[in-house]
Amino acid sequence: MGKGVELAIRQNSDMELVGVFTRRDPESIQTVAAPAYPYNTIRDFVGKIDVMILCGGSATDLAVQTPEIAQMFHTIDSYDTHAKIPAYYDEVNKIASASQHTSIISVGWDPGMFSISRLYNNCILPQGKDYTFWGKGVSQGHSDAIKRVQGVKAAKQYTIPIEDAVNKVRGGKNPELTTRERHKRVCYVVAEEGQDLSRIEQEIKTMPHYFADYDTAVHFISEEEMEREHNKMPHGGFVIRSGVTGENAEHKQIVEYALKLDSNPEFTASVLVAYARAAYRLAKEGIHGAKTVFDIAPALLSPVAGDVLRAQLL
Amino acid sequence: MGKGVELAIRQNSDMELVGVFTRRDPESIQTVAAPAYPYNTIRDFVGKIDVMILCGGSATDLAVQTPEIAQMFHTIDSYDTHAKIPAYYDEVNKIASASQHTSIISVGWDPGMFSISRLYNNCILPQGKDYTFWGKGVSQGHSDAIKRVQGVKAAKQYTIPIEDAVNKVRGGKNPELTTRERHKRVCYVVAEEGQDLSRIEQEIKTMPHYFADYDTAVHFISEEEMEREHNKMPHGGFVIRSGVTGENAEHKQIVEYALKLDSNPEFTASVLVAYARAAYRLAKEGIHGAKTVFDIAPALLSPVAGDVLRAQLL
Repeated sequence: MGKGVELAIRQNSDMELVGVFTRRDPESIQTVAAPAYPYNTIRDFVGKIDVMILCGGSATDLAVQTPEIAQMFHTIDSYDTHAKIPAYYDEVNKIASASQHTSIISVGWDPGMFSISRLYNNCILPQGKDYTFWGKGVSQGHSDAIKRVQGVKAAKQYTIPIEDAVNKVRGGKNPELTTRERHKRVCYVVAEEGQDLSRIEQEIKTMPHYFADYDTAVHFISEEEMEREHNKMPHGGFVIRSGVTGENAEHKQIVEYALKLDSNPEFTASVLVAYARAAYRLAKEGIHGAKTVFDIAPALLSPVAGDVLRAQLL
Repeated sequence: MGKGVELAIRQNSDMELVGVFTRRDPESIQTVAAPAYPYNTIRDFVGKIDVMILCGGSATDLAVQTPEIAQMFHTIDSYDTHAKIPAYYDEVNKIASASQHTSIISVGWDPGMFSISRLYNNCILPQGKDYTFWGKGVSQGHSDAIKRVQGVKAAKQYTIPIEDAVNKVRGGKNPELTTRERHKRVCYVVAEEGQDLSRIEQEIKTMPHYFADYDTAVHFISEEEMEREHNKMPHGGFVIRSGVTGENAEHKQIVEYALKLDSNPEFTASVLVAYARAAYRLAKEGIHGAKTVFDIAPALLSPVAGDVLRAQLL
């Protein structure tokens, strides 16, 4: 995602990339345009950088880095452990408020643009049902889970929405769907030589939490095929609100927000970069603390002046 | 749409409908739950009503009413003459700022939710192309234009997106589309007895601005069929951004926001009611003047507290 942020900044002429901070040897980092610096020199850049865009993962990186960095800079992150967001928000809010910084957390597409859709939809159509489908796309977490099975050399897992369910929802049928009826999982696996493939397949399909509740297909392929056919990071999905209005709830009103992404990390990075602009503006207005995408007016994301937006996009 | 607002307020337990103001005889008005009052008694309700939701049309009603009412109340309207929005904004902004009121203008779905989609999409994917398709749905303006043709008793016009164009856009092909390639128009017409139907058909199909640039089908039907088959106000459409990211713009990123509405006026009314909540809150914070949907943070639309939104919808 870090590389995606570099590329996204290049698409925004009002932004400048000052540097890339890394815990690895900066010499070993291939950046797009800006120099790489050691992570522990970050403090030297106070006053030289408007917003820090944090590109680490939620579990081990952001939980440590955001509280550190929000003491020194305005920040954007893509913290996506949904269950822990409230605690994370409280911690970052305390630190950023105290140090007079602005931290927009959990930016991306889910949480992020999908969350915004769910919120708008629920406000506009209070009587209705929410559906979120993910895919077709690569799930890093599930791919990693497969790699932990003994005898697996490489793996890629695709989450795929079940078409029949999607069509029922789009048709306003408001189905009650089990986990199995919403998504299926398709796994491409490279096994080490001499392994019992049926044992590996069995271990994947019965893995609790990750695969046991789904219809899962396992395909064993060669290393060459893995590199040739599964080297991309596509993703996407849909948020659908199926609501009703009218005297007797007789009118179905269906709202859908859909993403079809060739590159999940580059899209997520593009969202982060847009919210960096908003963080900078809020900070300039003296609005500090932790914020989420729910708190940010759409116009704050745009480099274009209000009167031009009203004339051209409204 | 006024009736839609009454019904939408019923779905929001934190709101109360105080009254319906009409230029007609209040006795002749069938309201859902609240009393009807004469329009010219509006001033008596200062202090008794938090927000006025204006339900008139753009051309003759809102251009007069919003400037009047914004002197006394916070307002919401659905002003939708795109070309005149900048001038309308300036006028309402001046009045509402001076009288310390908050007026959110041009609320609905286009302008409104479609505009929000266009704005988010342009901020996230600066390199890309916007497409807006409308329909399948009834266009009031086009239906009215047909009714002005001599010998026409009743008419209903459906705007229909051309599937081939939509599929090309969804497939990331970024086609250049003429007006004719984007939408077609299908008209159902009841003619007065003894009229030359081919003359009517010709006059409709060659009508400048409304039909001449489109492939238009005209079907003559009976009054009974009109009442039986064309008594609803469905509408909808899609906003699509087809963008690119990557080192060499090699990754297509497609975002779509789609509406499928059984009742266009009731959906529009539901959007207005949600923004009434935001207007009330902005006003309480002392933020006055004209605003558009671009200026309103999504959380301001919701009756639910921020911590609950973060836990449940983020």
